[in-house]
Amino acid sequence: MAQTVILSLDMGGTTLSYGLVQPDGRVRFQRAVGTHARGRGEAVIQQVLEVTRTLLEVASRRRLRVSGIGIGVPGTVDVARGRIRDNIQNVPELEGVALGPLLRRRFALPVHLDNDVNAHTLGELYFGRGRGVQNFAMLAAGTGVGGGIVIGGKLLRGRRGYGGEAGHTTVNLDGRPCFCGSIGCIKTYSSGPDIAAQARERLQTAQPGRLLELCGGDPRRLTARDVFAAARANDPIALEVVEIAGRALGAGVANLVNLLNPEMIVLGGGVLEASDLLLPRIKRWAASYAFADALRGTRLVVSRFIKRSSIRGAAALFLYETDRPPRSG
Amino acid sequence: MAQTVILSLDMGGTTLSYGLVQPDGRVRFQRAVGTHARGRGEAVIQQVLEVTRTLLEVASRRRLRVSGIGIGVPGTVDVARGRIRDNIQNVPELEGVALGPLLRRRFALPVHLDNDVNAHTLGELYFGRGRGVQNFAMLAAGTGVGGGIVIGGKLLRGRRGYGGEAGHTTVNLDGRPCFCGSIGCIKTYSSGPDIAAQARERLQTAQPGRLLELCGGDPRRLTARDVFAAARANDPIALEVVEIAGRALGAGVANLVNLLNPEMIVLGGGVLEASDLLLPRIKRWAASYAFADALRGTRLVVSRFIKRSSIRGAAALFLYETDRPPRSG
Repeated sequence: MAQTVILSLDMGGTTLSYGLVQPDGRVRFQRAVGTHARGRGEAVIQQVLEVTRTLLEVASRRRLRVSGIGIGVPGTVDVARGRIRDNIQNVPELEGVALGPLLRRRFALPVHLDNDVNAHTLGELYFGRGRGVQNFAMLAAGTGVGGGIVIGGKLLRGRRGYGGEAGHTTVNLDGRPCFCGSIGCIKTYSSGPDIAAQARERLQTAQPGRLLELCGGDPRRLTARDVFAAARANDPIALEVVEIAGRALGAGVANLVNLLNPEMIVLGGGVLEASDLLLPRIKRWAASYAFADALRGTRLVVSRFIKRSSIRGAAALFLYETDRPPRSG
Repeated sequence: MAQTVILSLDMGGTTLSYGLVQPDGRVRFQRAVGTHARGRGEAVIQQVLEVTRTLLEVASRRRLRVSGIGIGVPGTVDVARGRIRDNIQNVPELEGVALGPLLRRRFALPVHLDNDVNAHTLGELYFGRGRGVQNFAMLAAGTGVGGGIVIGGKLLRGRRGYGGEAGHTTVNLDGRPCFCGSIGCIKTYSSGPDIAAQARERLQTAQPGRLLELCGGDPRRLTARDVFAAARANDPIALEVVEIAGRALGAGVANLVNLLNPEMIVLGGGVLEASDLLLPRIKRWAASYAFADALRGTRLVVSRFIKRSSIRGAAALFLYETDRPPRSG
């Protein structure tokens, strides 16, 4: 009998990852492309159709049986309708697009769509750190900051699909304004673009240093990666920004601990590539904000799916929605 | 057949309420006494034994059949062992006391013990605003600020019983220090004692006004009630403090909305007696911190059990723990 695979797409803030994933989590094929520039919804949809066709061709060539499509998108999703509800930051034109039905009609396959971090959270439940864990939360910092919550082995979506949006909880009443309309969201301190922005703001009044060198003297070109590199070289501005990013994530961890008292919190997202810098700071700040005894009951771990793409999450989403529970850890 | 009642005790920060409650929520008898002064754990236990004896006598006199004891206590509870784990603020000596087994031995009745706000939350699920609601959260501001979370009709206790402690989530990274060891907890802005304390701090540098009159010129005697009375008379200091209390609770509501996206949030606790002042402010700030669309899906309501004692919560806790589900709303 032919091996079954799921066409798995993860639309991140900057990268569209896609691949073929077996129900046991094994990745049979995997690629990534840069997402089209912001503001071009139609182009993004075309890109999704294109990579899906590619995946179907690869599956056919390798004689793999395709069971359906799983796709994670940034923003919030009306899961029942397969519709992107609020694309939040990245591609405003995707707001309201019924991407699920569109793909279903085009490819005559079952399609399941959800928020990228919800998908990633299911990836952890099926194939990652969360295997066999009934109650855990995820906090993922990348282009944005998202979250996911699993209670009793079920993803908590809430009434309108906003469940788990830990990145848009306020940790600072009078803090930085967020594109979401709120103030002091964890995202405003800890996302990649916000880490770069906070360094850039500080550079305007600072002496030239390692940080400015790293971006070739042009603060506009500064990235979170530059900030991390400068922090490793003990640049004081970079260290200050890394500290506040870790502090906000640490408060986020503490708030999840005091509110949900989960067995585990999984940290993920591209920003956590710098876990050498961030993890000690997140742990220290979490300890200063959480009940000590509650925190002791929560394992704080870093996802294994950071450098490798999170297409396993999209595959897990498909399995979850088609009532195939994770194998016991 | 004799009517069944539950001996229901609610140990608040300042008041011990106790009564006889039928499984349908009808209160057959109810009294309250001031709790013994802080720091006297043994006296508090004696008081609990005393009122339990009183309840048994009343039940016997009225020929009511007693099915067991439900009791809500401040602080966190090891529910499986019936042990007060961390009494937090009020009676530090109760820390570690196995009140459940103690009462069970003394009265030969089944006993169920949990955190006071968890019990209150179950009271809402069984007899209050939460009847028929599968997913809701509670935020209760009184002597402390506590919370409770119901997901899929089940109370979320978490791994060690800290689940739902919304009052000790940080909304201000650099905020007021909390007795719990953290910084900027909602509690530090919105509990009764903290509302009084914030007014007191401001009085030290202010012109004499309505607020100082209300406490007879002695800021040490100032209570949250005085602050609310002064705010109603447009005292600027009182209004400022009420604003920050509402702002922190509003951010708490928003964080619950973005994290859990519940169907309902129930506000309660003695501080909400001033809901005329607080509710408009909580709503305004929640709207400024939450996703608008998520917030629209959440009904924000005030508990009906504020002035009346929350012994119904203790009764609901007993029913919940003995697997008697709430009647459908």
